[in-house]
Amino acid sequence: MIQKPSIPKGTRDFGQREMAARNYIFDTIRTVFRSFGYSQIETPAMENLSTLLGKYGEEGDKLLYRILNSGDAFAGVDFEKPLAPQVCEKGLRYDLTVPFARFVVQHQGEISFPFKRFQIQPVWRADRPQKGRYREFYQCDVDAIGSRSQLCELELVQIVEKVFQKLDVRVCMHINNRKLLTGLAEVCGFPDKVVDITVAIDKLDKIGQEAVEAELAERGLSAEAIAVLRPVLQLNAGFDEKLAVMRKMMAGSQAGMLGLDEIEELFGLIRAAGISMPCELDLSLARGLNYYTGAIFEVKALDWQIGSICGGGRYDNLTGIFGLPDMSGVGVSFGADRIYDVLAGLEKFPTQLASGADLLFANMGRDELGYVLGIASALRQAGASVEIYPDASKLKKQFDYCERKGIRFISICGSQEAADGTVQIKNLASGEQRSFPSSDIQGMMEFLR
Amino acid sequence: MIQKPSIPKGTRDFGQREMAARNYIFDTIRTVFRSFGYSQIETPAMENLSTLLGKYGEEGDKLLYRILNSGDAFAGVDFEKPLAPQVCEKGLRYDLTVPFARFVVQHQGEISFPFKRFQIQPVWRADRPQKGRYREFYQCDVDAIGSRSQLCELELVQIVEKVFQKLDVRVCMHINNRKLLTGLAEVCGFPDKVVDITVAIDKLDKIGQEAVEAELAERGLSAEAIAVLRPVLQLNAGFDEKLAVMRKMMAGSQAGMLGLDEIEELFGLIRAAGISMPCELDLSLARGLNYYTGAIFEVKALDWQIGSICGGGRYDNLTGIFGLPDMSGVGVSFGADRIYDVLAGLEKFPTQLASGADLLFANMGRDELGYVLGIASALRQAGASVEIYPDASKLKKQFDYCERKGIRFISICGSQEAADGTVQIKNLASGEQRSFPSSDIQGMMEFLR
Repeated sequence: MIQKPSIPKGTRDFGQREMAARNYIFDTIRTVFRSFGYSQIETPAMENLSTLLGKYGEEGDKLLYRILNSGDAFAGVDFEKPLAPQVCEKGLRYDLTVPFARFVVQHQGEISFPFKRFQIQPVWRADRPQKGRYREFYQCDVDAIGSRSQLCELELVQIVEKVFQKLDVRVCMHINNRKLLTGLAEVCGFPDKVVDITVAIDKLDKIGQEAVEAELAERGLSAEAIAVLRPVLQLNAGFDEKLAVMRKMMAGSQAGMLGLDEIEELFGLIRAAGISMPCELDLSLARGLNYYTGAIFEVKALDWQIGSICGGGRYDNLTGIFGLPDMSGVGVSFGADRIYDVLAGLEKFPTQLASGADLLFANMGRDELGYVLGIASALRQAGASVEIYPDASKLKKQFDYCERKGIRFISICGSQEAADGTVQIKNLASGEQRSFPSSDIQGMMEFLR
Repeated sequence: MIQKPSIPKGTRDFGQREMAARNYIFDTIRTVFRSFGYSQIETPAMENLSTLLGKYGEEGDKLLYRILNSGDAFAGVDFEKPLAPQVCEKGLRYDLTVPFARFVVQHQGEISFPFKRFQIQPVWRADRPQKGRYREFYQCDVDAIGSRSQLCELELVQIVEKVFQKLDVRVCMHINNRKLLTGLAEVCGFPDKVVDITVAIDKLDKIGQEAVEAELAERGLSAEAIAVLRPVLQLNAGFDEKLAVMRKMMAGSQAGMLGLDEIEELFGLIRAAGISMPCELDLSLARGLNYYTGAIFEVKALDWQIGSICGGGRYDNLTGIFGLPDMSGVGVSFGADRIYDVLAGLEKFPTQLASGADLLFANMGRDELGYVLGIASALRQAGASVEIYPDASKLKKQFDYCERKGIRFISICGSQEAADGTVQIKNLASGEQRSFPSSDIQGMMEFLR
């Protein structure tokens, strides 16, 4: 029976052009991570469900892909009880953060702290697929764990700046601090309404001050509380002024004052390091309120509307659930798919992304093959990517192959060239053709560049 | 509740040292693949079970990891019928070959044939874990599909030679042809006993000619048939002699004669290309008898006993099951885990596998930080991997960190250096220490090399 081939909804095949573009992004990110001394690790795609369950909230538990136990999964099952927990012990990686925490605890004896690691691997979520949201996608995470120094935060800011400089994308980094949000909730007398307050403030740009105040009231804040928060809602100032207004407000909150100290220190470091990427204190930034405890980051492209393309923050107790308390860390995650869309949208991919070979030797039949094989090997040895067309097809077909695969040079070595010991190479874009002695590998390499 | 962290049996975490070693292997393989014009693709980890089932035999079907349908998988299930097929529609990739075949058929309109692709991704098998056998492991496959030319076979031989040259491992390539095995079975009058005959011949080295003949008899071959095969069992000759003996034997088998032609052509190409790796015609090589139709390859390390570290062959109908008949291809697969073991066993990993940074700036406190930040950035810009220790800890601790992470150079910039505009860098292995003006980034880079 013949099957019409397809892949599961929300997953993707990557052909050679997409792979070349994706590898360009991954290689750039990896090179920058390495230049700051971060080391790569990998964890298995399958984790024990006990490692994953309960780490992503109730909604997350539902989005975990579960793997049916191998062998006869249903043998001895109690059909009166929920079945999934009885027949599935393993699940697919949902993010890179929980496996990282598990890794740190499991291997704590072998790790040198502060541990600076990066990880670039796919994750899986049983989300409803839609434009730009996939069920399998790569995450690129970089974290430093085991130090409370804000030099770690600075390093992440430097990494973000360098990655997007290399990718030639203008970005703005939004920075907040979880303790400031705690502080705001405390000083207005509603310490348990951190999320409500932050969500409302988040809409300031879109709906304006009055509507935000209305929403705060709806969410249960008193008029007095809103009055306390008003200076923040009216803030439209530079960093120093923002900070001064906040210092006044926060006098009554220890968390808030600590948050201000941290923000002030971090922006001081950013200045000292000469960061040229715009970094903005953004009190409405409300990412990861359930686990971040200090700095919160989010990066947006300035010239392409797509939401955040990178984000992260500091967490003080990531590894506690696995038995290693007081391990503070900070990290960011780069969204490869969105960065891909930004680069494609802004046409920022290098025009010569290495997808095909540099040069094709046309196949003129068996007689000239021995001659061509040696030259092809020498060129490869010198660093070129070289193909020999496998069949002695019509030249038209061989030229078409070059065009479709983006091969920029062709060489046609017939009996004459083999007898003379010469090599003709043609630049297919410019039409320029040159002849080389077969020993002049260096000359050919220069022409291929 | 605190959980003791663990990972599923048969899976592995890779820490920074293992990753550096593995990346060395993958990068080497990838570079060679690219130099021959092969392009990378990736397919999803999850495939529809309909794509996977029935492709790996009955045993393979049992070893597939099945993924529980998302949502309420058991809603509406008929408990009288087998449950697994009702609650699982997707499975994890079991190898790279079937997804490749699916890819070729699904995207045939966008592909330029001959299609030369490589793919380096993990696969999953619910096998019993044991030493050297894992439930998650990487495969590195390279295939050319859409040409019957044995230049494709030659290219794979060249690729194997080049990969192991670069890895500095001496190997021998064993080559057979499926048509020769068909021929042997035909000329001795037992055309349906190809597998029996090959399995018995395979033991020749271990158990000797007499025992092999006994086994052939046990497997149902007549004395006459064994007499026909005897010249092959007594073969202990060079390539030309082997071929001459076979030519005589095979006169009655069209498949056998075709196989001899192919073998002769391929070894001719190997000679023409100047392959220096030993390549041996090995009639006992019986890999993939169910799908290979022409050349069969296997590569063994000469100086380390571990079985085959790379293997493959030509298949004439890989894509037929998905509706694209007559698509001939040939490929090999590199076994990354075994290659790792060989390199480790022979101590062939480069001593300086980039795992940690090149240089650590000790943290002497906030005052010198601004000075150090600028120099660190300039060195990174020049291509070095540079860390600044995040905390102003005792120097002993910072030195220990270098040692444990394999960081080879340390720089201690105190107030004196900041005032003078100098940088002291110490080679931790040799003890050599040098001083540079802070502007002499080039000089520092040379010292770090």
